[in-house]
Amino acid sequence: MEVYLDNSATTQVFPEVAEAMTQIMCLKYGNPSSMHLKGMEAENQIRKAKETLAGILKCTEKEILFTSGGTESDNLALRGVAEAYKRRGKHLITTMIEHPAILQTMKYLEEQGFEVTYLPVDGSGRIRLEDLQAALREDTILVSIMHTNNEVGAQQPIAEAGALIKKYNPEILFHVDAVQGFGKAKVLPKKMNVDLLSVSGHKIHGPKGIGFLYVADKVRLKPILFGGGQQGNLRSGTENVPGIAGMAMAAKKLYDAYDADIDKLTQLKALMIEGLRQIENVQINGLLPEAPNGEGTAPHIVSASFRGVRSEVLLHALEEKGIYVSAGSACSSHKPQPSATLKAMGVEKVLLESTIRFSFSVFTTQEELEYTLSVLRELVPMLRMYTRKR
Amino acid sequence: MEVYLDNSATTQVFPEVAEAMTQIMCLKYGNPSSMHLKGMEAENQIRKAKETLAGILKCTEKEILFTSGGTESDNLALRGVAEAYKRRGKHLITTMIEHPAILQTMKYLEEQGFEVTYLPVDGSGRIRLEDLQAALREDTILVSIMHTNNEVGAQQPIAEAGALIKKYNPEILFHVDAVQGFGKAKVLPKKMNVDLLSVSGHKIHGPKGIGFLYVADKVRLKPILFGGGQQGNLRSGTENVPGIAGMAMAAKKLYDAYDADIDKLTQLKALMIEGLRQIENVQINGLLPEAPNGEGTAPHIVSASFRGVRSEVLLHALEEKGIYVSAGSACSSHKPQPSATLKAMGVEKVLLESTIRFSFSVFTTQEELEYTLSVLRELVPMLRMYTRKR
Repeated sequence: MEVYLDNSATTQVFPEVAEAMTQIMCLKYGNPSSMHLKGMEAENQIRKAKETLAGILKCTEKEILFTSGGTESDNLALRGVAEAYKRRGKHLITTMIEHPAILQTMKYLEEQGFEVTYLPVDGSGRIRLEDLQAALREDTILVSIMHTNNEVGAQQPIAEAGALIKKYNPEILFHVDAVQGFGKAKVLPKKMNVDLLSVSGHKIHGPKGIGFLYVADKVRLKPILFGGGQQGNLRSGTENVPGIAGMAMAAKKLYDAYDADIDKLTQLKALMIEGLRQIENVQINGLLPEAPNGEGTAPHIVSASFRGVRSEVLLHALEEKGIYVSAGSACSSHKPQPSATLKAMGVEKVLLESTIRFSFSVFTTQEELEYTLSVLRELVPMLRMYTRKR
Repeated sequence: MEVYLDNSATTQVFPEVAEAMTQIMCLKYGNPSSMHLKGMEAENQIRKAKETLAGILKCTEKEILFTSGGTESDNLALRGVAEAYKRRGKHLITTMIEHPAILQTMKYLEEQGFEVTYLPVDGSGRIRLEDLQAALREDTILVSIMHTNNEVGAQQPIAEAGALIKKYNPEILFHVDAVQGFGKAKVLPKKMNVDLLSVSGHKIHGPKGIGFLYVADKVRLKPILFGGGQQGNLRSGTENVPGIAGMAMAAKKLYDAYDADIDKLTQLKALMIEGLRQIENVQINGLLPEAPNGEGTAPHIVSASFRGVRSEVLLHALEEKGIYVSAGSACSSHKPQPSATLKAMGVEKVLLESTIRFSFSVFTTQEELEYTLSVLRELVPMLRMYTRKR
């Protein structure tokens, strides 16, 4: 049995999406900047994709800007705003548990003379609104908070944070990295006072190498790539038409089946948590204290620490049984480092390197999780014994 | 009959490439950063692609860096070098006829305090080596010259320029934008003293949204996107595995059939030029004076000015006959502007807006060009009459 539980790292592309992309690549392959029929066909694909995505976000089509993925979306949002608004102030706010695409870009901006406040999180991985309130300053130009944490599935209070920021000063812009949240939660930027929002194609059964940034109409943004002036001069480079169409199609499929899928994922998560609790000395990370079955957190991520077992060893033992999971986030490059998210949440030091992330998709089945749990029940005590004996 | 003669704008993806990408998207869809089998499968795809591309360029695999396309490759080369070497000097050299991805990035660098010399070109669109020699200075850190001009097909004397630069000062880096040249010429950076070289997937029957930058081992480069630290921290963001594999496969197909294809394209170009000469008052741009049939220029591009006909009118008249061409370059965004390349070549002002680019691919046939020429013979005199009458 092959069980892919690393869907927060990347997902299988929907076969219909791959099929549609092939049609575009081989038949409707024009350059959207070309002035003839082939160009118009390509431009139509982009227009349709924008229509779909704008419908999901409840925004206008011109507020959708295509990028090469979540990392570029995050870079463009942060650096694009910082550069455009630096005369108004040089203070930025984010959290301690963001994706490296945010944290490393913030580090770069610090080198450019910006000042960044990193909000702490509580034991469940959520920021406290009073910390955000206290961090806001007259020279704050941007707050960036992730929608759903990629390692533990904590969901931030985005709407509340948005309201709080705008009450303090409507001119402060609010960016949300929704790479892990989009497709798994209703994401409505206008309702949540969000001005910029990052999404990636390959986390939602769309292709790799494509993403988008929602940019509210009023936001002035400086580009970070220069060239042919495509997309209103905000993102030069020939548009990745098949990628754009594929991403939009994947998003539509997810949101068309939203209620049923989220119900299913929520039940799978509860099942997984319950099963893990039956194994001795396992800690589930990122749950809300009042909701031990996972309510109020992302329905597709379960983070568990297995005391006395090294995560890398468990990962490879599971791999031999056909089960693919992740140690920490593995969303970034190869060298595994102690997780900044788990540390910020106050997870015991000894558990930092004993943590596994199980992440589901709409393809995940109850049978797969039951198999995974049965394998864990067998493996974990064995690996503990082995560790003790060494 | 549908005749696509806008292959310098973008190309049809090889069906086998699209097929291979579908397999990767739906089956080998792992994240190369994941530590399990699915991740390794994905990493293997990248390794194989690097092997292929390194074989074609005759370089090492670690000198291949994947980007989201030609524009990002150009941006990374110029800004990455400028940022890394600015202590050594702040002078850059390029030409007046580069793609906007170079020209606009140079403009950005000028705003950052760099000084840029723009080399003029002769009537055939080639730089003069003595101009390059005269422009080199003690504080020059980078020279960037395009391999093949996208509008007229002029090929620059890359090897001679490389030798000249390195003779002046081996520490000056040499970047070549080979987006239009790769696949249509043998491009061997090490032999030509080239340190950085940009390539795009969708110009060579590969997918859109992918490209690569050759970076010679000795070059220190600063990244322009920050995040998870993929690709040795030089280009963060989950690698576009299907795009990477597809681009490499397309490159391999082109270079495997290189001799026969280039022969065929060269003959098609000669045929097209000869046919155009039979129409009154047509000027072919970018030919070498000593080679009226197109030798020494890109085999896939013919630029022709039709005196007394507006290019946009001719473009749409051809479109109605199923023939797709470009007015000027159309590689960039919609608003057509008088071509900087043609201006720099000294093309008569009245011809600037009467110029059409015909660009071929390995799919182009003699029959298609004969049809195109017969349509032109009919249309051009008619459109001239119409223009006079207005």
